Amino acid sequence: MSVENRNPANASPRAQNIFEEMSTSQTTPNGHALAIERRLLRRALEQLGHPPLCFVLWDGSKVSPPGVAPECELHVRDRGALWRLISYPEYQFPEMYAQGRVGSGDDLEHVLDVVQRARRNIDPNGLKWRLLSAFFRPRSGSMASARENIHSHYDVGNDFYKLWLDEQMVYTCAYFPTPEIALEEAQIAKMDLVCRKLRLRPGERVVEAGCGWGALAFHMARNFGVKVRAFNISKAQLALARERAVREGLQDAVEFVEADYREISGTYDAFVSVGMLEHVGPQHYRELGQIMDRCLSDDGRGLIHTIGFDRPGRLNAWIERRIFPGARPPSLGEMMPLFGPNGFSILDVENIRQHYALTLRHWLERFNAAQDEVLEMFDPEFVRAWRFYLVSSQTAFTTGHLQLFQVLFARKGCNEIPWTRAHLYRDGGF
Amino acid sequence: MSVENRNPANASPRAQNIFEEMSTSQTTPNGHALAIERRLLRRALEQLGHPPLCFVLWDGSKVSPPGVAPECELHVRDRGALWRLISYPEYQFPEMYAQGRVGSGDDLEHVLDVVQRARRNIDPNGLKWRLLSAFFRPRSGSMASARENIHSHYDVGNDFYKLWLDEQMVYTCAYFPTPEIALEEAQIAKMDLVCRKLRLRPGERVVEAGCGWGALAFHMARNFGVKVRAFNISKAQLALARERAVREGLQDAVEFVEADYREISGTYDAFVSVGMLEHVGPQHYRELGQIMDRCLSDDGRGLIHTIGFDRPGRLNAWIERRIFPGARPPSLGEMMPLFGPNGFSILDVENIRQHYALTLRHWLERFNAAQDEVLEMFDPEFVRAWRFYLVSSQTAFTTGHLQLFQVLFARKGCNEIPWTRAHLYRDGGF
Repeated sequence: MSVENRNPANASPRAQNIFEEMSTSQTTPNGHALAIERRLLRRALEQLGHPPLCFVLWDGSKVSPPGVAPECELHVRDRGALWRLISYPEYQFPEMYAQGRVGSGDDLEHVLDVVQRARRNIDPNGLKWRLLSAFFRPRSGSMASARENIHSHYDVGNDFYKLWLDEQMVYTCAYFPTPEIALEEAQIAKMDLVCRKLRLRPGERVVEAGCGWGALAFHMARNFGVKVRAFNISKAQLALARERAVREGLQDAVEFVEADYREISGTYDAFVSVGMLEHVGPQHYRELGQIMDRCLSDDGRGLIHTIGFDRPGRLNAWIERRIFPGARPPSLGEMMPLFGPNGFSILDVENIRQHYALTLRHWLERFNAAQDEVLEMFDPEFVRAWRFYLVSSQTAFTTGHLQLFQVLFARKGCNEIPWTRAHLYRDGGF
Repeated sequence: MSVENRNPANASPRAQNIFEEMSTSQTTPNGHALAIERRLLRRALEQLGHPPLCFVLWDGSKVSPPGVAPECELHVRDRGALWRLISYPEYQFPEMYAQGRVGSGDDLEHVLDVVQRARRNIDPNGLKWRLLSAFFRPRSGSMASARENIHSHYDVGNDFYKLWLDEQMVYTCAYFPTPEIALEEAQIAKMDLVCRKLRLRPGERVVEAGCGWGALAFHMARNFGVKVRAFNISKAQLALARERAVREGLQDAVEFVEADYREISGTYDAFVSVGMLEHVGPQHYRELGQIMDRCLSDDGRGLIHTIGFDRPGRLNAWIERRIFPGARPPSLGEMMPLFGPNGFSILDVENIRQHYALTLRHWLERFNAAQDEVLEMFDPEFVRAWRFYLVSSQTAFTTGHLQLFQVLFARKGCNEIPWTRAHLYRDGGF
């Protein structure tokens, strides 16, 4: 497989060329930004909600929102990049950053922080946003396209993820009982928190929908004595997970199944899904809830851990297209068809978005530290695209554009549930 | 005010008479239930989802669902009551119980438990249910009817509520860190839990929407050093609350305002509402959310404590008409317009329905113990109606027909929020 083919930033060349034609001349060393371009840039800043951001153009001229003291700079290195930014800033900023035609020195986090804070004032249901997102529709969540979507992100290569995830390779939000602890510890704490919320008991049967490289399945089997069937449609992840099961002597306790969540069969005491719902799509939640209903025993319970929104929304169009094709995190309200209509009661919802911001900070540090090794695997555009993705995700959690919900549920009227949540926080808890 | 007028069970005589005409003859000492009546009763049991319940008719004959061993008995004392039960069991069972024409010995809790468990199998959106509930529409939530609705329940008389509530008169779900503690302690623990979730700090300003007799307002002012403005539209509750403020020397810290939540003005650090949302109606949530947005400071946060459903539903029609006119608890999904569209993120949802079942058990014990005193104030029908209401509410929480949600929220992107929930459970917490 060539590096070119494995680079998501090269996946769809169409959008890259749409606006190129609009800028009739490429930058020359002596080129000057026109008055109309500066005016249009101001309008784009207005559409972004007046972030305290200064654009520095290729000719050295500067543009910032009127009446706002800029806190950081964004360099636009050529006229084509400027026209793209003006035309569709949300999409073209990351795109041009990945191509190296827009840059921010080492200050990308600050730039994204001010941009995302300013965006709070913008109505996500505004006409322009809706038109643009209609153009960049997410792929559908059918079983075939689900496999394709998952392949394009999770099969980028186990060796790549090993470079910057924790040693157990957990690619979901960690839980830091205190912010100072190491990522490794925080991932274990997260897995433990999930198991404690589910009150797993030795001998119980657990089904996991979307199991990554298997870390949670191993953790449950090893520390809580349960039998796990773990479903995944990423071939690369499953290959490594099965290797690890053998290496750790857990092949009798954990079975990995290469199948979609729609193919889950059997009866279980607990259903758990960490970081899969984002890829399911709200139109399939009722069906997923029916599967949970079908596969859970009478006192069965479940936990869903997912990225979410305060109200129905979409990921940034560039992330949705380049990084996570088909991804669509829900609002808490959109999750309801999973539960009530299928006879489940919600017991507990915890929002730990700040923990995801910190998790991403750890990943980013490791990613930056491993930059040379990543560059041996992929081209510089891939590295910049992934850096943008990690930084922008971090700031999205910091600024509250994204939430991280853990939703615990049980069958309606089941009284085999904990009396309070105190058990989570004592006797070696958090 | 005469006892008759103050008796909610006498509020609307129309429904009482509708079906009386259907039974052409009243029971005579020697009357026998007809075959058709027994058959119709079996159909009613079918509609109730085949509860293991035996009807004992006035002539001694028995009817129970085929193939189900009955666990308890319900006595139907006359033919008119039978026809009413057959025509609309959900409404007429409590109505006939209140009138003493249907009885269950001391076993009402058991009867309601089996009926409510059986009901789980029934589709609440079925045609019959919808037709019947359309007939018994709840009153609207306009400001004028809100006052009327609240008056009819909460102004029944402070002396009446004093007989069976805790000494601080908290008429909402308590929180029992362990089930053994006394109701008094559990109400204090609930108020403390609410304050801890809100992280109240000395000197902060709190607005309370729907304050009952003021117990939470006093608790916040006394133990957390905050200034409280508490809104209520029940004159009887406010009169006692103001007396208590003076008696306890808290009149500078707690201001009671006789006004609807729509009239809240000022700026506050925290918004709290315990047991009011049930009376607001989902059509007003967006507006209530706008009020929360308007009245909260930049790092403001809030907590809403409410009875709820797993999915949109209605209270039992009799409860809705006789006991709580205008009441309409929401599903968690229906609550969403309060938050997202008004720039709030949900941080934490806790479902403590089992605590409400236990709270109701305490109230019921005290209510039964005070029966003679209640009978000096009201007629036997009132006593039976209230007993039915308390028992059926208890079993509704035990069987999961009703939930109790505490929803904690903060402004989107506000990072002045606790890192974890551990602080709730240590240092004298729960």
